[in-house]
Amino acid sequence: MLFGMAFNALCLALCIALGAAEFGPAPRITWHLKEINLMHFHVPGISSYSTLLLSEEKDVLYVGAREAIFAVSSLNVAEKLNEAYWKVTDEKNNECAWKGKSKQTECLNYIRVIQPLNDKTLYVCGTNAFQPTCDYLDLTDFRLLGKSEDGKGRCPFDPAQSYTSVMVDGELYSGTSFNFLGSEPIIFRHSPQSQLRTEYAVPWLNEPSFVYADVIRAPANNLQGDDDKVYFFFTEVSVEYEFFSKVLIPRVARVCKGDQGGLRTLQKKWTSFLKAKLICHSSENNLIFNVVNDVFILKHPDLTEPKIYGVFTSHLNNVGLSAVCAYNVSSVEEVFAKGKYMHSATVEQSNTKWVRYNGEVPKPRPGACINNEARAMNYTSSLNLPDMTLQFVKDHPLMDDSVTPVGNKPKLVLRKVIYTQIVVDRVKALDGNSYEVMFLSTDKGMLHKAVSQDTEMRIIEEIVLFPHLQPVQNLLLSNKEGKKFIYAGSDTGVVQSPLAFCEKFTSCKDCILTRDPYCAWHPVKHSCVNILQESNADESLVQQLNGDASQCPASSPIPFPPSATSSLSSVRPDFHPSLPSMQPEVLSSAQSDVVRLLPPSLSDQGHIVSAQGTFHLFCHALAPEDVHFSWEKDGVLMEGCWKEEQHGLADGTVHILSWVRDIAAQDAEYICTAKSKRGSKASKGFIKVAGGSGQGGSPELAQWKAAVSEHSSIMEGWKKTWESCNKKL
Amino acid sequence: MLFGMAFNALCLALCIALGAAEFGPAPRITWHLKEINLMHFHVPGISSYSTLLLSEEKDVLYVGAREAIFAVSSLNVAEKLNEAYWKVTDEKNNECAWKGKSKQTECLNYIRVIQPLNDKTLYVCGTNAFQPTCDYLDLTDFRLLGKSEDGKGRCPFDPAQSYTSVMVDGELYSGTSFNFLGSEPIIFRHSPQSQLRTEYAVPWLNEPSFVYADVIRAPANNLQGDDDKVYFFFTEVSVEYEFFSKVLIPRVARVCKGDQGGLRTLQKKWTSFLKAKLICHSSENNLIFNVVNDVFILKHPDLTEPKIYGVFTSHLNNVGLSAVCAYNVSSVEEVFAKGKYMHSATVEQSNTKWVRYNGEVPKPRPGACINNEARAMNYTSSLNLPDMTLQFVKDHPLMDDSVTPVGNKPKLVLRKVIYTQIVVDRVKALDGNSYEVMFLSTDKGMLHKAVSQDTEMRIIEEIVLFPHLQPVQNLLLSNKEGKKFIYAGSDTGVVQSPLAFCEKFTSCKDCILTRDPYCAWHPVKHSCVNILQESNADESLVQQLNGDASQCPASSPIPFPPSATSSLSSVRPDFHPSLPSMQPEVLSSAQSDVVRLLPPSLSDQGHIVSAQGTFHLFCHALAPEDVHFSWEKDGVLMEGCWKEEQHGLADGTVHILSWVRDIAAQDAEYICTAKSKRGSKASKGFIKVAGGSGQGGSPELAQWKAAVSEHSSIMEGWKKTWESCNKKL
Repeated sequence: MLFGMAFNALCLALCIALGAAEFGPAPRITWHLKEINLMHFHVPGISSYSTLLLSEEKDVLYVGAREAIFAVSSLNVAEKLNEAYWKVTDEKNNECAWKGKSKQTECLNYIRVIQPLNDKTLYVCGTNAFQPTCDYLDLTDFRLLGKSEDGKGRCPFDPAQSYTSVMVDGELYSGTSFNFLGSEPIIFRHSPQSQLRTEYAVPWLNEPSFVYADVIRAPANNLQGDDDKVYFFFTEVSVEYEFFSKVLIPRVARVCKGDQGGLRTLQKKWTSFLKAKLICHSSENNLIFNVVNDVFILKHPDLTEPKIYGVFTSHLNNVGLSAVCAYNVSSVEEVFAKGKYMHSATVEQSNTKWVRYNGEVPKPRPGACINNEARAMNYTSSLNLPDMTLQFVKDHPLMDDSVTPVGNKPKLVLRKVIYTQIVVDRVKALDGNSYEVMFLSTDKGMLHKAVSQDTEMRIIEEIVLFPHLQPVQNLLLSNKEGKKFIYAGSDTGVVQSPLAFCEKFTSCKDCILTRDPYCAWHPVKHSCVNILQESNADESLVQQLNGDASQCPASSPIPFPPSATSSLSSVRPDFHPSLPSMQPEVLSSAQSDVVRLLPPSLSDQGHIVSAQGTFHLFCHALAPEDVHFSWEKDGVLMEGCWKEEQHGLADGTVHILSWVRDIAAQDAEYICTAKSKRGSKASKGFIKVAGGSGQGGSPELAQWKAAVSEHSSIMEGWKKTWESCNKKL
Repeated sequence: MLFGMAFNALCLALCIALGAAEFGPAPRITWHLKEINLMHFHVPGISSYSTLLLSEEKDVLYVGAREAIFAVSSLNVAEKLNEAYWKVTDEKNNECAWKGKSKQTECLNYIRVIQPLNDKTLYVCGTNAFQPTCDYLDLTDFRLLGKSEDGKGRCPFDPAQSYTSVMVDGELYSGTSFNFLGSEPIIFRHSPQSQLRTEYAVPWLNEPSFVYADVIRAPANNLQGDDDKVYFFFTEVSVEYEFFSKVLIPRVARVCKGDQGGLRTLQKKWTSFLKAKLICHSSENNLIFNVVNDVFILKHPDLTEPKIYGVFTSHLNNVGLSAVCAYNVSSVEEVFAKGKYMHSATVEQSNTKWVRYNGEVPKPRPGACINNEARAMNYTSSLNLPDMTLQFVKDHPLMDDSVTPVGNKPKLVLRKVIYTQIVVDRVKALDGNSYEVMFLSTDKGMLHKAVSQDTEMRIIEEIVLFPHLQPVQNLLLSNKEGKKFIYAGSDTGVVQSPLAFCEKFTSCKDCILTRDPYCAWHPVKHSCVNILQESNADESLVQQLNGDASQCPASSPIPFPPSATSSLSSVRPDFHPSLPSMQPEVLSSAQSDVVRLLPPSLSDQGHIVSAQGTFHLFCHALAPEDVHFSWEKDGVLMEGCWKEEQHGLADGTVHILSWVRDIAAQDAEYICTAKSKRGSKASKGFIKVAGGSGQGGSPELAQWKAAVSEHSSIMEGWKKTWESCNKKL
């Protein structure tokens, strides 16, 4: 048992290093599919699993795919509960193809909206061969009612187009495009009674890409008598900036739930549509993230206000850059409630420039929800708002003030990664503090887990969700107590992942070193456990989110030597040179893991060679740019005898590979050390000479020796190196 | 001799691969200092060798450093001919320190201007402890005359500030700052008779960083009676763009040599100052290069017009990006001569916006030189230009049209490199065509040589000019026939490099494969020669700039197997497995070098191991992202038995490392192959078993075997791998 654990621990150490080596941002651990056995849902012949809806009460996940809707168990997505197919008719398919679209791909029915209407009915919309259509799904027998409602404004025509929707109190709010060409963007509210939309005008929406929509409820009985608000997040073409080319800009827009449109001006249009730019810059290195790819709004009873998380990238000079910025809802509210508006001015007859509007603003404040202040002025509905206010908001939907992120900078900036989706969980750790854990999916099928450590967010884990580098299209977090999962949709299926893999850490030290707020060491069970799954919170659980493993019980197997000791003296006394070692081979000289030796370790390369046999040993590491290797043979520096190569990685660190070539004269111990100002790591190995002192030996050896002397001119350089390396020893 | 050459060829192959591995852009060859023995000039105690002036007639290079001016031989910069010291007085040094500057660094005299006044005199200016001063250097005895002219406007106060200057017909044109604070930028012309300057106003110069100035002569007897023009290149803060933050913009400005200033308006100021933006964008991937670091103007009798080359970088989202753009002088001329002006308009009382000016333009055209057209209108000097024209150019120095590069895109875009300086040579190759060769220095002490190959520029060579990663501050090209050199100045010294290292290529194939227009194979001399140094152009010289080496004489040693043959069949018939190989080990399966195996090759790792001895073999390569390794043992794929690791490099390619671990049962041949869709490379090696069939053996081996069986649980996994790898064979 002890051996088994030690072996696992070693394997884990290798996995950590291997995983870290594969990516720029270097998360601490990478889990590959075969290691973690994630639940996976896929139906042969069905693709584009882009729409997910979770019913936490029923433990059901609804999945919208191409021409199909599924219900699967949210506890095991591999378990299909129900299915309903919604294919386009041949007639529709042909008609769509006549219009120049692809019969095989575009002219099918992509389910884009699945929203709960009531306990027994889902509202479902699909692109339906460029004729967006909505229908009702009866959950009692999982059957579409075939109502074929016109879905214009609720669902895009084109499956390639951006869209977002949210159901609020039985009304569907959506951001999509309103026409076949995709040229008329719209933010739309649909209910059987009424429909409300945006004005079709550049200042309202200018080639937007919608990414997210959600409602934020006004606090019950709030003093201002304020309304619930629906927020939309998108990237659009800027009207206010001028640069060398089109400037994209990330936006937040909001409308009020109680909006009824205007009576004459803005009839059947939003009277409460306002938008502002989201700032996500890293000013210290001039990084500008002007494209928002996804948003998540964290609402938690413990939080005084919801928090908005966005994943951003840039369309300028982008050689692979992503960032996460977070915003307080109150910052957004403030911009809309008190900020200045922008105003378009005509310059020199022909140019339109957007500038801050400094003139008088009509009352009630244009774009505001109907609140107590408006009611006091006798405006009880948007229908009776004065024309001045309506005309103003029609012309000035854009705020001059912008929404700045918490801390005035991104929470996380990464190179060589494009994030597609984000969800955020909040977990109360054993230290009593609550930690926000971000799950970020990439365009290559990965999921990163980032946790705030010290003052910055760090990626502590990476999961391969989809093996073939497909973009993750949708990410969903189940928050049900004891049943927390992440669901991810891609073109080929849906994957379900737990929020942590604590049980994979087989030693207390590893369990602590992950610094995962979900994980703690259970000294009695001798295992790393998920604190959310331990029914009786045991006081003896060990969790140190600063990574200090000194509280680990002494009796538990420790796969690494104590990291505070110096590198070479920490080799175990029972370490036997002639054994191909399974002992710990990574010797830390500092607690930091800025320098990481990668497998195979030197001890793992332990050779038994013939006398005078040549051999190579190599070490490699991930480290800061200033890293260099040094090699020792039997404790003496092999000065000038090794080679090394650095490859600059995209995250500013380097991969360094170093090797020595030597001829075996006698048994020897080799140590390679990767040294940087910020830390160092060493690895140790042995070469065993099997052929004795070098005299005599096998016929082959004699043959080789003869060949060597015969071609002495060729061998000269090589021998010289060897001699100079060995005369010092 | 033959052996020696083969050895060199191998070394060269290694050097090539090694060099390529160290940098993102992966030039074909890297020359390190010790390989090429560059001439180097440095005087102990003297730093900041930032100013270079070449006298091609006298074969002298003048070097301006901190508190010193040197004359060195331009044929060998290590040979110092003369020196003159110009130290600040203690009084000046103290005075400067009182003003808050550093006594040890800033308050010294940095020579920033060395310009030829006449055959016997140089004009020299230095920062002189923040009191810029100019003096005359008598070349007969290399003595400063001690004239102490006020250098304001000719030389910066602050050694850290940007500056540029050019001497034209005895008048010094300079771009620098005019005051102690460095806040007043100026483009200035100084002659004993008169001085002319820019207006101190934001629309003229807005926080510029000057990088280059040069004169472009009007063709003699040109029909328009046009004037010579002096061009300035700089980066400044844009007034016309609005973005999230300050937008920097690269500019070209020009003044006319005959400009005398205005009589009342623009008195003692340029009447011919106009500026325009330089465009250097790669629109396909939204890369915007908005900072110009250096410019070179290629003037060559064969060229119909001078060509402007600029090295650019970006200050936005820049994680290491550089580009080279080239412009025809006629494109620049056209913008100034016919382009629209920009006009500043006031919007809503408080905002200033720059827009295209569409109104009427006074005559003569504002900012134009005095040419025949102006003379026909009776304006023979800028002094009698009408007020309307002068007032217009004073208010409208900025053109609305921009200067677009040749081909409408950069000639070269690189990641992970910041270029600091550029010079360009033009060489007539043996095919009769002229090739432009760009030499680009980096902020890390490197020099890249780029040549147009097919339709794109490729970096064919890299030279380590300065070993300690110091920025190259100055680059100079000597164009004297038969004496072409590059001179580079840095903080620590001056380095002289030839333009090519043809003689380093010891085989015809290598000589051809460099695709260097300077190099050709001399079949009689059996060496790679510089075509510029072959006095009698020999018709038998072999040069194929497309890299086709089929014309190489058959008798010359060929270090690589013919690259058209398939990878494994091209192993030479006389290749003997039991020899540690010095034979070619890189087997090409395609002509492309997109996949490059790096040393040590497998054959170089040839081991002689004990029977049952364990060993590792490893291969690594630079390749496109889709690369994977495969391993064969005695011709059978070792499926599942190797490990590999990829590290994404900044240029989008990857470094891949793969290794196998095996136990020696009998002699075996191993081949590792790096395969990508775009090409593949293989390497072959042999393992020789010295201990016979595995029975018996040395006492050590027996001991090891016992140890292995004792710890069989530990060894299980390892043995399983071995068994599964070997049962297939």
